[in-house]
Amino acid sequence: MEILWDEIPVFTEEYLKVIDITDKVQQIIREKKVNEGSILIYNPHVTSAITVNEPDPELWDDLLEAYQRLVPLKANYKHNAKYRGIPREENAHAHILNTFIGQSVTIPVREGRLLLGTWQGVLYIELDGGKRRNLVVQITRLK
Amino acid sequence: MEILWDEIPVFTEEYLKVIDITDKVQQIIREKKVNEGSILIYNPHVTSAITVNEPDPELWDDLLEAYQRLVPLKANYKHNAKYRGIPREENAHAHILNTFIGQSVTIPVREGRLLLGTWQGVLYIELDGGKRRNLVVQITRLK
Amino acid sequence: MEILWDEIPVFTEEYLKVIDITDKVQQIIREKKVNEGSILIYNPHVTSAITVNEPDPELWDDLLEAYQRLVPLKANYKHNAKYRGIPREENAHAHILNTFIGQSVTIPVREGRLLLGTWQGVLYIELDGGKRRNLVVQITRLK
Repeated sequence: MEILWDEIPVFTEEYLKVIDITDKVQQIIREKKVNEGSILIYNPHVTSAITVNEPDPELWDDLLEAYQRLVPLKANYKHNAKYRGIPREENAHAHILNTFIGQSVTIPVREGRLLLGTWQGVLYIELDGGKRRNLVVQITRLK
Repeated sequence: MEILWDEIPVFTEEYLKVIDITDKVQQIIREKKVNEGSILIYNPHVTSAITVNEPDPELWDDLLEAYQRLVPLKANYKHNAKYRGIPREENAHAHILNTFIGQSVTIPVREGRLLLGTWQGVLYIELDGGKRRNLVVQITRLK
Repeated sequence: MEILWDEIPVFTEEYLKVIDITDKVQQIIREKKVNEGSILIYNPHVTSAITVNEPDPELWDDLLEAYQRLVPLKANYKHNAKYRGIPREENAHAHILNTFIGQSVTIPVREGRLLLGTWQGVLYIELDGGKRRNLVVQITRLK
């Protein structure tokens, strides 16, 4: 058994944005010739999130709208009050949503294939955009 | 170290339903004689979810009610607008909830025992029912 | 490859409380001399949760306020109705939030270092306090 490492850089100038990183994950599995094991995609940032869902831009609008409806960008957040005047740090909404959506996904790999379902893609969810991000990729490869 | 595979089929005709799959997971651990390692139960579907919580049908009603209150079945979803006339594809609510509840759970196994707490069961949460599903089970067994 | 075990006890008398357990996790990694692998911190309880986010007490107030706004402590919960008169069991809100925030986190370890981002800490989120808890720690160590 061995552990392999990689990373996936992501960047958008938009404040809220869903980015499909499925191709990048598939490419890592191919390049590293992972036949059996699993891949952990870990987001070391606290104001964006990662999930697995459908690569459908209309759905992404629905996701971002629901997120903002449930956790408004502007509210009486104490975290933001501390950073008043520093707009790019007024991001409590993003922290809160990160705790719901999650920091990482683990996807099994079998016979050289990432076991994503038919409608599944790996989605990076930027909630506090305009910042350069780097996702950690850890592969556990049995063979 | 070795990786073992299995699957758990789930089906309900109900649109929203919590299904306790703890016994099936326990049975896999016993049958495959897993003494130490972990089990990943991965849902390859995007309109249902998986979690660990209490096997209490009253609580399940509370869960489903809270989910619908926060993310209504009917709303002005763009994803649904695309599929108007195809009722079984009007499921944006289920996609959104999937991103909150999660696609998989990982549970440690020690001395032949799944380390679920006293009040924990493995719960499959159908949010778009009437579809046949198949959960992927990946066991990492050290011994 | 080997699997190492540990546990992290947590306790607060407060009903809702965020507890930073980052130092305890770091200490386990050091003491067990984990150079490469990953750590699973698994919460075997159903009315509290675990996440990775910023160790900022003002933010923690925002988290707990958002959680209560979205999932009120008092509502017409069937789970609570069963336990009427047993106040410490009237905790449906905590079960519901647990299914959103999550039961466990997996963090990669590389070159002896837990790969937490700059603003990340490991946060235990008590949603039904006054109970003694014990988190399960499972380390997968390659070297």
